[in-house]
Amino acid sequence: MKAMVYQGPGQRSWQDVPDPVLVGPTDAVVRVTAATICGTDLHILKGDVPEVEAGRVLGHEAVGVVEEVGAAVTSVQPGDRVLASCISACGRCRYCRAGVYGQCLGGGGWILGHTIDGTHAERVRVPFADFSTHLVPDNVDDSSAVMLSDILPTSFEVGVRNGNVQPGQTVVVVGAGPIGLAAIETAKLFSPTRIVAVDLVPARLEAAKQFGADVTVRADEDPERVVAELTGGLGADVAIEAVGVPDTFELCTRLVRPGGRVANIGVHGLPAVLHLEKLWIRNVTITTGLVDTVSTPTLLEMLAAGRLDAGRFVTHHFPMSEMDAAYDVFARAGETGALKVVLTR
Amino acid sequence: MKAMVYQGPGQRSWQDVPDPVLVGPTDAVVRVTAATICGTDLHILKGDVPEVEAGRVLGHEAVGVVEEVGAAVTSVQPGDRVLASCISACGRCRYCRAGVYGQCLGGGGWILGHTIDGTHAERVRVPFADFSTHLVPDNVDDSSAVMLSDILPTSFEVGVRNGNVQPGQTVVVVGAGPIGLAAIETAKLFSPTRIVAVDLVPARLEAAKQFGADVTVRADEDPERVVAELTGGLGADVAIEAVGVPDTFELCTRLVRPGGRVANIGVHGLPAVLHLEKLWIRNVTITTGLVDTVSTPTLLEMLAAGRLDAGRFVTHHFPMSEMDAAYDVFARAGETGALKVVLTR
Repeated sequence: MKAMVYQGPGQRSWQDVPDPVLVGPTDAVVRVTAATICGTDLHILKGDVPEVEAGRVLGHEAVGVVEEVGAAVTSVQPGDRVLASCISACGRCRYCRAGVYGQCLGGGGWILGHTIDGTHAERVRVPFADFSTHLVPDNVDDSSAVMLSDILPTSFEVGVRNGNVQPGQTVVVVGAGPIGLAAIETAKLFSPTRIVAVDLVPARLEAAKQFGADVTVRADEDPERVVAELTGGLGADVAIEAVGVPDTFELCTRLVRPGGRVANIGVHGLPAVLHLEKLWIRNVTITTGLVDTVSTPTLLEMLAAGRLDAGRFVTHHFPMSEMDAAYDVFARAGETGALKVVLTR
Repeated sequence: MKAMVYQGPGQRSWQDVPDPVLVGPTDAVVRVTAATICGTDLHILKGDVPEVEAGRVLGHEAVGVVEEVGAAVTSVQPGDRVLASCISACGRCRYCRAGVYGQCLGGGGWILGHTIDGTHAERVRVPFADFSTHLVPDNVDDSSAVMLSDILPTSFEVGVRNGNVQPGQTVVVVGAGPIGLAAIETAKLFSPTRIVAVDLVPARLEAAKQFGADVTVRADEDPERVVAELTGGLGADVAIEAVGVPDTFELCTRLVRPGGRVANIGVHGLPAVLHLEKLWIRNVTITTGLVDTVSTPTLLEMLAAGRLDAGRFVTHHFPMSEMDAAYDVFARAGETGALKVVLTR
């Protein structure tokens, strides 16, 4: 089959690889019908995620049809249309039993396209299929469903729920890429009074407005002043970091009011400076996290019920055979305006 | 009257100053019968808290007898024996209405010995007396009660409750000075399976054992290894920072397990490095905070009921006239073994 293979920093190739096979009794093999590319895949290509080895098939987001299941799999069967979640979960370790699937100690967690071959391929082996796949409702199309492999549950759980967004609040989302936009969309479910989006790119701020941001501010136009003016000088109740660089994290710690929360979603490659000499007295809570995907069944139901619009994240469609072109378009999002690109076959 | 006056970095004097008088209708003037010195007072003397101006009377912990009250005060009256809390609170601003008295926007917060004259004096003006003082039960002595002006509610609220200590957990307390010991004492109220105390000073580790630490580790003897061994390699559920320097904070972020919490109590003068390149994926929650003293009434009841032992923090007693000697003994705690020194008259 064809797959997109990481060949070391800066290098990838859409090439022939062996078809995946069942390895363990909890595995499924899924024929990929839709995949999407994540900013994390670009991080890997830059060499920012050193545990990814050359030769690894990239990708951790897919929808597809189950082709084969191991003897222990009971929740899905061949022919089922399923969402493959970015988080695999053994279901049995102490973290899984607590619903903290992202920290699975039993061989799961974020493994697809990371420590095992991923979803940017014609087929993918999904370990622990009972806990790592979800049946897709009939009225939810592939392109929408695949937004629930990662970005919507990630922004909802790691941004909005860790940030404890509440009615009436002022929420700042720093970074208006797909993850930031998904944070805006899911923050609105809690009826904050205002959502402020911060980004450097005007087109992304325009997208933020379309996704529901009430106020947009260019990162170089003093977002601290803007947020202070909106909040009587106090600062935001919640600041959501959706970029993954030290500057934006540190900005979040300056934007938040005393007693507020900074919810980090960004994938970071560098340490940040934590100004404890200012923060120690301010009752600030900072959270980090990998998505657990506990919200995925609910979000799928909301898609099916028309209570979430996932399709609008998708700016570009490609046939899977044009995987290389899709990576190029996504990597040059500043020029191409790409939010999420979806590959189908 | 006599008072301990900050004279700029490194300098203090026990000297004559004018008696305090009622300024606002919510004030009380309290004749101090017991005071204690805080590590924060030493920070101020080092010049670490630049908003404290020369000429300021130090101290934010006292028990005393009300001498005068303003026209608006209704909860206490002359002759009442009261605890003066380190936090003053207007009671009316949005933070006070939410019980977040430490962040009071109405002129309160930590003001005693900080932005107004403090308690290391024969008398002290306490603003917002209705919200800033607590009647002391008859069977609670001054020395025990004054431990509730700051350290016990601080360690309980900012360390143990922000850390969300739960039954069965492994809790690490980094720093076994009075604040760390108070964190150990109040963490035990939630029945963790083990409390690990970390400090550089053997005498403090010995004190930690007496206060209930199950395991003690010298900071230079690889606490990360010890905690990993105790927890099957996972790390602590909760790490409480009770020192206030970058090294100990950063140690806490290494000691905590995925999904765990770092509760910072320490008063910091410098920024720390936050290793987001490791922490982003680990579901770690970091909290900072100034005490709100919402727990003070409960802690006073627990003292009266014999459910807390506050007297054992007090290693040295001085008459108030020996304030200078008391500061010297407290500042040289490493040699003198001082935990809390209490001044009475």
